[in-house]
Amino acid sequence: MSERLIYLPLGGAGEIGMNAYVYGYGKPGEERLIVVDLGVAFPDMDTTPGVDLIFADIAWLAERRDRIDAIFITHAHEDHIGAVAHCYDRLRAPVHARVFTANIARRKLGESGYPEDSVTTASAWPEQVTAGPFRVGFVPISHSIPESSALVIDTPAGRIVHSGDFKLDHTPVVGEAFDPDLWAEIGKTGVKALVCDSTNVFSQHPGRSEASVGPEITKLVQNASGMVVATTFASNVARVKTLAEAGKRAGRSIVLLGRAMRRMIEASVETGVLTDFPSVISPEDAQSIPRENLMLLVTGSQGERRAASAQLSRGKYNGLEMKEGDLFLFSSKTIPGNEKGVIRIMNAFSEMGVDVVDDSSGLYHVSGHANRPDLDAFREIVQPQILVPMHGEHRHLREHVRLAEALGTTGVLAVNGMMIDLTGNAPTVAEYVESGRTYLDGTVQIGALDGVVRDRIRLALNGHVVVTVILDEEDEPLGEPWCELMGLPETGRSNAPLVDVLEADADQYVKRAGAKTLRDDDALNEGLRGIVRQSALDEIGKKPEVTVVVSRLS
Amino acid sequence: MSERLIYLPLGGAGEIGMNAYVYGYGKPGEERLIVVDLGVAFPDMDTTPGVDLIFADIAWLAERRDRIDAIFITHAHEDHIGAVAHCYDRLRAPVHARVFTANIARRKLGESGYPEDSVTTASAWPEQVTAGPFRVGFVPISHSIPESSALVIDTPAGRIVHSGDFKLDHTPVVGEAFDPDLWAEIGKTGVKALVCDSTNVFSQHPGRSEASVGPEITKLVQNASGMVVATTFASNVARVKTLAEAGKRAGRSIVLLGRAMRRMIEASVETGVLTDFPSVISPEDAQSIPRENLMLLVTGSQGERRAASAQLSRGKYNGLEMKEGDLFLFSSKTIPGNEKGVIRIMNAFSEMGVDVVDDSSGLYHVSGHANRPDLDAFREIVQPQILVPMHGEHRHLREHVRLAEALGTTGVLAVNGMMIDLTGNAPTVAEYVESGRTYLDGTVQIGALDGVVRDRIRLALNGHVVVTVILDEEDEPLGEPWCELMGLPETGRSNAPLVDVLEADADQYVKRAGAKTLRDDDALNEGLRGIVRQSALDEIGKKPEVTVVVSRLS
Repeated sequence: MSERLIYLPLGGAGEIGMNAYVYGYGKPGEERLIVVDLGVAFPDMDTTPGVDLIFADIAWLAERRDRIDAIFITHAHEDHIGAVAHCYDRLRAPVHARVFTANIARRKLGESGYPEDSVTTASAWPEQVTAGPFRVGFVPISHSIPESSALVIDTPAGRIVHSGDFKLDHTPVVGEAFDPDLWAEIGKTGVKALVCDSTNVFSQHPGRSEASVGPEITKLVQNASGMVVATTFASNVARVKTLAEAGKRAGRSIVLLGRAMRRMIEASVETGVLTDFPSVISPEDAQSIPRENLMLLVTGSQGERRAASAQLSRGKYNGLEMKEGDLFLFSSKTIPGNEKGVIRIMNAFSEMGVDVVDDSSGLYHVSGHANRPDLDAFREIVQPQILVPMHGEHRHLREHVRLAEALGTTGVLAVNGMMIDLTGNAPTVAEYVESGRTYLDGTVQIGALDGVVRDRIRLALNGHVVVTVILDEEDEPLGEPWCELMGLPETGRSNAPLVDVLEADADQYVKRAGAKTLRDDDALNEGLRGIVRQSALDEIGKKPEVTVVVSRLS
Repeated sequence: MSERLIYLPLGGAGEIGMNAYVYGYGKPGEERLIVVDLGVAFPDMDTTPGVDLIFADIAWLAERRDRIDAIFITHAHEDHIGAVAHCYDRLRAPVHARVFTANIARRKLGESGYPEDSVTTASAWPEQVTAGPFRVGFVPISHSIPESSALVIDTPAGRIVHSGDFKLDHTPVVGEAFDPDLWAEIGKTGVKALVCDSTNVFSQHPGRSEASVGPEITKLVQNASGMVVATTFASNVARVKTLAEAGKRAGRSIVLLGRAMRRMIEASVETGVLTDFPSVISPEDAQSIPRENLMLLVTGSQGERRAASAQLSRGKYNGLEMKEGDLFLFSSKTIPGNEKGVIRIMNAFSEMGVDVVDDSSGLYHVSGHANRPDLDAFREIVQPQILVPMHGEHRHLREHVRLAEALGTTGVLAVNGMMIDLTGNAPTVAEYVESGRTYLDGTVQIGALDGVVRDRIRLALNGHVVVTVILDEEDEPLGEPWCELMGLPETGRSNAPLVDVLEADADQYVKRAGAKTLRDDDALNEGLRGIVRQSALDEIGKKPEVTVVVSRLS
């Protein structure tokens, strides 16, 4: 059987988040594999209460661990790098990344006890890393974090360009500008497939440069009369720099608040991607400086409850607090699902008399992803045979395929678990692989379909009743059954305590139950569960989750 | 002591939702009261899992029930009318509303068993309802539901205009156009206070008319080749009519899907506010019509899981289903917090090959609320002495006060529970009243601070362990303690079943506990809870909620 080139998204093709892509080359079933990105997605109360992190189910990969030659990380955003330490033990393949990204990866792996040398620092294009049949080059491309890279993946079946996250920014403030000539050069020898970021495929206007926000932010800060506090993603080092410079220009001392903010700037300076960052002072020193001479750069642009912005909205944080007349700037876009958290903070600041400025004017934030016309422009430069959209929900991937096909490029809509054979001229679906989500819950990895989280959602919606009944050696009830309630109202329709009503009904049931039922745990369980749920329904209009504990002295 | 005029928001001044406003006139503490609107807010998993509805805590009002002369409902949106049946029993004051709103109110009260005559149908301005010292007139004003009304409240201390929800729409499709001359007339005799909608105070451009969406929707429907399905708020009868007419013009048969959709159109036709609505066919009849000749108008514009749009995104609904080449139109704006539900539906349709069109182009939806320039224009016409913003989060109220003050009107930032004395020329805070939220949970009303929902959130985040231990007549453990787990992983660090690890640790604790502890329920409870939480933390990295059940045979 002849060799083939395969592409298999395990995460990121069907959501924006938890990126995990696989490329393979070899005889079917014996392909050598490389992994591109191992990222996380973030949980929410609606679907994943109590979960800490979400990432792609890598069971398919783990079963083929001996065939994995390398893991490549395109950039240090959590949705691309966040799962690397959680997956490493099951994959144990060398991790390659450029210096800044490698720094972050090493910190993550180090915290989990893996050695320094699990991560290899890669040089930028035109150097390439050889990994099995692949030669992989990191091509600098502009995004919203230092050193974001597209990958040029050369294979015996042709060249693939894996875009990573990117935008066409000619003046990115930090890091390398988008270089159309370089990309034309890369495209010249023929590109089989462009596997491409789809995040902003619905944004109709051309994207704006990172450099465009600087003058606006500077104006805003210069006109502010109180303390200025600004938030953005800590990893958007260019923005943090822009904000800091605006503060400096306005004669303000800069304070970094929030662990991620300090860490990211440290890593950026350490690795040399950030130079000329204005000097910062500590929160302690800031306390002796008049507030009109201060500018705080803080974490929590998405309204995260424990981040600096949320803490400031509730009161003091590191000895600093917001006051009437201060200004708070969200130099960021709110990711869908985070609106309520962000709005909560805005209202808390409003109550303090703090002016809040957000992105609604379009002046203080630009996206890090290529918009629709930019996607067209990039494809035009790279000239791929095939366009494979990634980094998008289904609607983004579908729209991106349409966009490409409207201009004559073959598009392939590949979602998580769909293995595409890219060998020939026409891509085909080679196989459907089981894909899914893994939850990090505390320190345990659980499958999304294990039912653990489903049970928690039920508890949250319905409350919990535990019914305990003790039976003696003759299978006769010893005393009355009793109920423990959690998350349920104390009284209902009858105004008697709900617990009393449930216990009375449970007792009546047990008293009337025949010897056969009393001997049978399952029957007793089911009977008590039914009676308690019905009793609650009559009393409070809803059926709680019920756990029955039958204890036998025999 | 002299008489005074008071304004007291109990809901709606601090959030967009659960509107409930009180006006009073009389000697302090003896004011005769009227209530304006009794609306609901909607729960979410983040803060109110399992809750059915949220409304203002009316304890203050209920304690003064004998002083309430009337309840006025400005319009039939749920955030203004939705709590009327839930609060009625505790207030028992006559409800006044115009014919369409009264129809909806009567249905709601009727379903809860209250008589027809609890609601009185009011005529529009210049008629006025006398209620104690107040004369209240319903002034037609444009919004996004039939018969929305502002209230002119004449009091011995002067005239108040309570705007209700409104926009300045000169061509509203259904219902009365905004009439500047009428409002100038109302303002002429002097308006003490304008209590005013603040929803869109951050929207900079003038609002657009409902009539502007018709031509765009018509174009869209005429160019569609498959079935067209459109969703909007059912109560936006003008929009539903526009959608239906667009379908009819394109030669399509109209189907209404979703209970609310059918109900609202029925109520509108019944009460005469809607005329010339295109004839509709049943879902059954629709099945024999080619899909390119069908247009469905469906509920679920906010992504609600049980509404028609979500059902169609999961498969068949009333025998109808979406197919490749169909078009789905969100003729609506997504309310913050509902994004994920709406996006879920969009992606499900994308998977079916259905084209989804939403409001992002700005062509297919207009807001029902006055934008910033419209608020200025309205104030200019009405010429109030004082502007009291309502129907807004804190940031909206604050911004609205600023807006008014910038143009020379005194603004009062009154949040829920803040009683404002409007008698003199300068408004003052008369009193702070306890306000809050009541949750309808099943059939029970619980206070937001009762802890019931807090416990449910804890269960959802942490899972639940119930530890049961039986002690004999001598306070000696009978057998070993056992644990029931819900919402927790089956195994953790040690790979042994978590339940076994917890039970072993609990057993060890009980075996080592002294006689004093074993005699003391509280000590035993606390001890077991601590040991199980610690044991879980070691094993799975998180501390579950723990309920300890100590059962004594003595």
